Amino acid sequence: MQLPKGKANCITDVPDVRVGHVTLYEKLDDDNTICTGVTAVLPHGENLFKKKVHASSSVINGFGKTAGLIQLEELGFIESPIMLTNTFSVGSVLQGTLQYMLDENKDIGDNTSTINIVVGECNDGYLNSIRLQAVKPDHAIQAIKNAKTEKVEEGAIGAGKGMVCFGYKGGIGTSSRVVTGGGETYTVGVLVLSNYGNRDEALFADFTKRELETPDGSIMMVIATDAPLYDRQLRRLAKRCAAGLGRTGSHIAHGSGDIAIAFSTANKHSHYSDSPIEKMAFVRDSHPIMNRLFQAVTEATEEAVICSLKMAETTEGRKGRVVENAPLE
Amino acid sequence: MQLPKGKANCITDVPDVRVGHVTLYEKLDDDNTICTGVTAVLPHGENLFKKKVHASSSVINGFGKTAGLIQLEELGFIESPIMLTNTFSVGSVLQGTLQYMLDENKDIGDNTSTINIVVGECNDGYLNSIRLQAVKPDHAIQAIKNAKTEKVEEGAIGAGKGMVCFGYKGGIGTSSRVVTGGGETYTVGVLVLSNYGNRDEALFADFTKRELETPDGSIMMVIATDAPLYDRQLRRLAKRCAAGLGRTGSHIAHGSGDIAIAFSTANKHSHYSDSPIEKMAFVRDSHPIMNRLFQAVTEATEEAVICSLKMAETTEGRKGRVVENAPLE
Amino acid sequence: MQLPKGKANCITDVPDVRVGHVTLYEKLDDDNTICTGVTAVLPHGENLFKKKVHASSSVINGFGKTAGLIQLEELGFIESPIMLTNTFSVGSVLQGTLQYMLDENKDIGDNTSTINIVVGECNDGYLNSIRLQAVKPDHAIQAIKNAKTEKVEEGAIGAGKGMVCFGYKGGIGTSSRVVTGGGETYTVGVLVLSNYGNRDEALFADFTKRELETPDGSIMMVIATDAPLYDRQLRRLAKRCAAGLGRTGSHIAHGSGDIAIAFSTANKHSHYSDSPIEKMAFVRDSHPIMNRLFQAVTEATEEAVICSLKMAETTEGRKGRVVENAPLE
Amino acid sequence: MQLPKGKANCITDVPDVRVGHVTLYEKLDDDNTICTGVTAVLPHGENLFKKKVHASSSVINGFGKTAGLIQLEELGFIESPIMLTNTFSVGSVLQGTLQYMLDENKDIGDNTSTINIVVGECNDGYLNSIRLQAVKPDHAIQAIKNAKTEKVEEGAIGAGKGMVCFGYKGGIGTSSRVVTGGGETYTVGVLVLSNYGNRDEALFADFTKRELETPDGSIMMVIATDAPLYDRQLRRLAKRCAAGLGRTGSHIAHGSGDIAIAFSTANKHSHYSDSPIEKMAFVRDSHPIMNRLFQAVTEATEEAVICSLKMAETTEGRKGRVVENAPLE
Repeated sequence: MQLPKGKANCITDVPDVRVGHVTLYEKLDDDNTICTGVTAVLPHGENLFKKKVHASSSVINGFGKTAGLIQLEELGFIESPIMLTNTFSVGSVLQGTLQYMLDENKDIGDNTSTINIVVGECNDGYLNSIRLQAVKPDHAIQAIKNAKTEKVEEGAIGAGKGMVCFGYKGGIGTSSRVVTGGGETYTVGVLVLSNYGNRDEALFADFTKRELETPDGSIMMVIATDAPLYDRQLRRLAKRCAAGLGRTGSHIAHGSGDIAIAFSTANKHSHYSDSPIEKMAFVRDSHPIMNRLFQAVTEATEEAVICSLKMAETTEGRKGRVVENAPLE
Repeated sequence: MQLPKGKANCITDVPDVRVGHVTLYEKLDDDNTICTGVTAVLPHGENLFKKKVHASSSVINGFGKTAGLIQLEELGFIESPIMLTNTFSVGSVLQGTLQYMLDENKDIGDNTSTINIVVGECNDGYLNSIRLQAVKPDHAIQAIKNAKTEKVEEGAIGAGKGMVCFGYKGGIGTSSRVVTGGGETYTVGVLVLSNYGNRDEALFADFTKRELETPDGSIMMVIATDAPLYDRQLRRLAKRCAAGLGRTGSHIAHGSGDIAIAFSTANKHSHYSDSPIEKMAFVRDSHPIMNRLFQAVTEATEEAVICSLKMAETTEGRKGRVVENAPLE
Repeated sequence: MQLPKGKANCITDVPDVRVGHVTLYEKLDDDNTICTGVTAVLPHGENLFKKKVHASSSVINGFGKTAGLIQLEELGFIESPIMLTNTFSVGSVLQGTLQYMLDENKDIGDNTSTINIVVGECNDGYLNSIRLQAVKPDHAIQAIKNAKTEKVEEGAIGAGKGMVCFGYKGGIGTSSRVVTGGGETYTVGVLVLSNYGNRDEALFADFTKRELETPDGSIMMVIATDAPLYDRQLRRLAKRCAAGLGRTGSHIAHGSGDIAIAFSTANKHSHYSDSPIEKMAFVRDSHPIMNRLFQAVTEATEEAVICSLKMAETTEGRKGRVVENAPLE
Repeated sequence: MQLPKGKANCITDVPDVRVGHVTLYEKLDDDNTICTGVTAVLPHGENLFKKKVHASSSVINGFGKTAGLIQLEELGFIESPIMLTNTFSVGSVLQGTLQYMLDENKDIGDNTSTINIVVGECNDGYLNSIRLQAVKPDHAIQAIKNAKTEKVEEGAIGAGKGMVCFGYKGGIGTSSRVVTGGGETYTVGVLVLSNYGNRDEALFADFTKRELETPDGSIMMVIATDAPLYDRQLRRLAKRCAAGLGRTGSHIAHGSGDIAIAFSTANKHSHYSDSPIEKMAFVRDSHPIMNRLFQAVTEATEEAVICSLKMAETTEGRKGRVVENAPLE
């Protein structure tokens, strides 16, 4: 029995979570097309460095170049937006996001610590002339500024502009679930950047013919929740994405960077504090609501992938390659 | 498109792999029934300590008491049978297996190093009076001696005697796949000890009613292959079990110890050697055959779970509890 | 500048932590001597299953057979005593400790979950006839019952009876540090089971001649603190043992199972609760007191090793082998 | 007893390993000084993408922003130079190194896979106006082009220009050891970027007064060897850096990103191959030479830190801050 969906079936159903896109598209010549972008997920609307939230990750398959996970795992906090882009733009987006955070926080790198920026990526090189590195630092800044709490635009947009999934046009997809128990109600939202799979592997539709030979691709998954969970527990949520991926038909291919990042907005910890002691509330692992949170991640991951396909319009990329919108009702 | 199955659709399709069971069943009184056992998986028929094989593991969910994984991960080798039993018999089975290996190897703990024994477990406490700890060290020794290369008996047998899966009788299940490419042919076999899930979670059948409330349970998964893979690569195989689990309907519950152990029989390394140097062959990660190996694990994990249900006869356990054979054709 | 030591320079300086030993010694014949034992560390004096405390571990080198760490890492809690013994007695001690906990808790494995037992080990096979497996489950129960909050007996006692360290008699050693800051005062205690190193490797003394060729050995390290830290932070403490080991002269040898387990007594979480929500306090990672806690672990680990040598009397073991008390003032 | 040093006591004692620096220094005004740089370590002189070598890492403390480790751990190979720089230049150096590799390999991101770039960092913000992000992509390219097999320049050079260690001027240091056994001779070289510790923590000298309050800092450690080791074994080497760090006096501070990366030049694997099978030789973990390799890493790490201090000249940075050369003979 599936869990109920959130109001907009969207990661922004988790209160105060924000998502912004910047999309780049330009046909340069017969060989080259810029077909890429940046997507920013902001855990909340306040200063992210000054108000850190618990976070963790799961590297389901590590053929990926995601930046920032080492410190995320060590400290259990996130202090920047989570940025998504193409594989060769991690450097640019890292720089742009850093610049944004430096501008917002004059103390970083001067009289307080440095900052850890998180950037995930997939390889959109089938459609996008990825070697041209069209994404600039300013695009990252713009994506952050575009972030809003409304329903997220899905499909061939932002970082999803050039992605291919199950041989059809993939990209950004999102879904959410509402979980209740013990007098509490929580929302779990998942946003994916989908870029993996061959047609004959899909389990959610009968795509049959493997016409398009794309490389293994990747999938980035971002999980947001307002359930009070700390880093160890968020890692448990992130690991459940693997079950959701399996349901879509993935066997987690060699060349696919399948990486999940989970955060909770429930406990915000100040960067500065006079006290050596912090306090927090968290869900008991053994309470039945924890299993519903796991189920929510599994279901919403599967559905977010399907949404990314449904919403992605047919797109022409480099070398005249065309990837079609999937035939899903 | 599914991969072809092995000859017997069984982990022993991998040449020289052996499996043995010991089953314990006795109704003691109205309250207590012994309904448990031991299953031994032997990577090959030679001396396992003297001829070590590469192995690794994946802890998909760590609510489990599996012994021996720390050294397995550090050294990348397995040097004992892989033993499966109930949660409270890990100590007994550890002792029995150690005794068996000491009897076979007079040098262990005398003039050479000690030995690392691997024991996995699931909680069969719904049907079995687990607090009575009916499994003795000799049962482990007997399971090892029972091991043979023939088709494995499945269902309510060996360590599977008391297990419950998706609200029906679970236990031992196995499946295999044949993988070809680049002029090579390899077999991948999976054996599971299934003990997880509620009826309304199953995706492979319409079980509908959640009549039976069992605790979260667990699943142990053992993967064997004759493809030449070393420990890092075997960890990659073990991780793919999560996708297979997801397909059955699991969201990897909190209280479920979901642990996979993978080994390859292709490179056997001698315990003693005059040379400081060892040699080995291994499959290139980037060769397409690696993806087929991953697919094989995903498919065979899902099917092994279904087999464990199909083959498990209705069983009566402690307190008169009866768990039925699943209505699968 | 070293931190101040605790009152008794002992792990039991952390309030309510308890340690108990059982020592086995018997010369059987010219070849065989039983020279081994069990040591139990109890995080507190209440029911350990009903009142769980945060814990984590660090596998510095995984040539070891420690049981129970998988679940420790998944759930971040410890719910049993931490037991230390010889390599081939992990099974026995697991069984005995389980029996003790089952007797104390009639609900375990009946109408609540199972229990995760933690057992660490070193190989005392140079002095002890380890193949004879002299430790029985009852010895584990006795060690638990012997546990008390007074100053711990060190040297050739309990699990330390047969251990060898830097070519001299090793075994149990302990040390503690007091840490202050931000108006708070905390104690950090370390207890080690030392069994590693050659004479010419020691950096804390000039042992010179490498007369005794023992195998690589191992070291188990248990860290207790009353500082409020959760599992991620306790893993950070456990990792600092590697720096302390390095200072003694260890290069963390291949065959040495170097494993640290850390727990905090500050937050006790009930096994049963009506609420889905738990609360806890914890030290801010960025507060200077955290670095003092790290320093405390490093210093106390080094000193605990030296204490284990100083206090260990010359011992005769199997085959007439004699290992001497180290020439330390 | 210490192992013998290599010819130049330098990471480039490992045949064909290359190191290059670019140093940036400019006093802009009373407040701001550019005092930073880039250091490149090349595992060999051929095309690094086309001839991959085994590599692994150890995150001793994860307060760091190193890029590229996820894929390194998944695939066990390195396919780019290892770049070192300041914390806020990871993005720039990632981009520059990517550009260099794209220029060398027209197939990357077009008709073959993407590439994984490894960039490590320390925070030189005490001396360097790090917020100005003075390092540009071209500096990374220049550092790679400067790489040569000769003795490495140490101290306040390259990425080490602005680093501070134990309250004195730190930066680049290197050391090597020669290991023999079983008829084989291998070299182990370590290069560090040192930027951690307070004066009163040093164990290798009597620095006494803690005059300078710098933030926790970090240390990057790169280990090179020609011993045939595969990724799991190289991770074991990388972990031994923690023991070396401990010997210098470090307790691995909270804010210190202590990260080690190890590679072996012995087995080079081609990016392209017709065969699904690869072959390799490797040192047996249980051969005594493995312990000497561990010892080599421990000793060379400690000495490389001391070298980085000895060779680092007194340097003036931002806000008129001066950090002196350490009083070591």
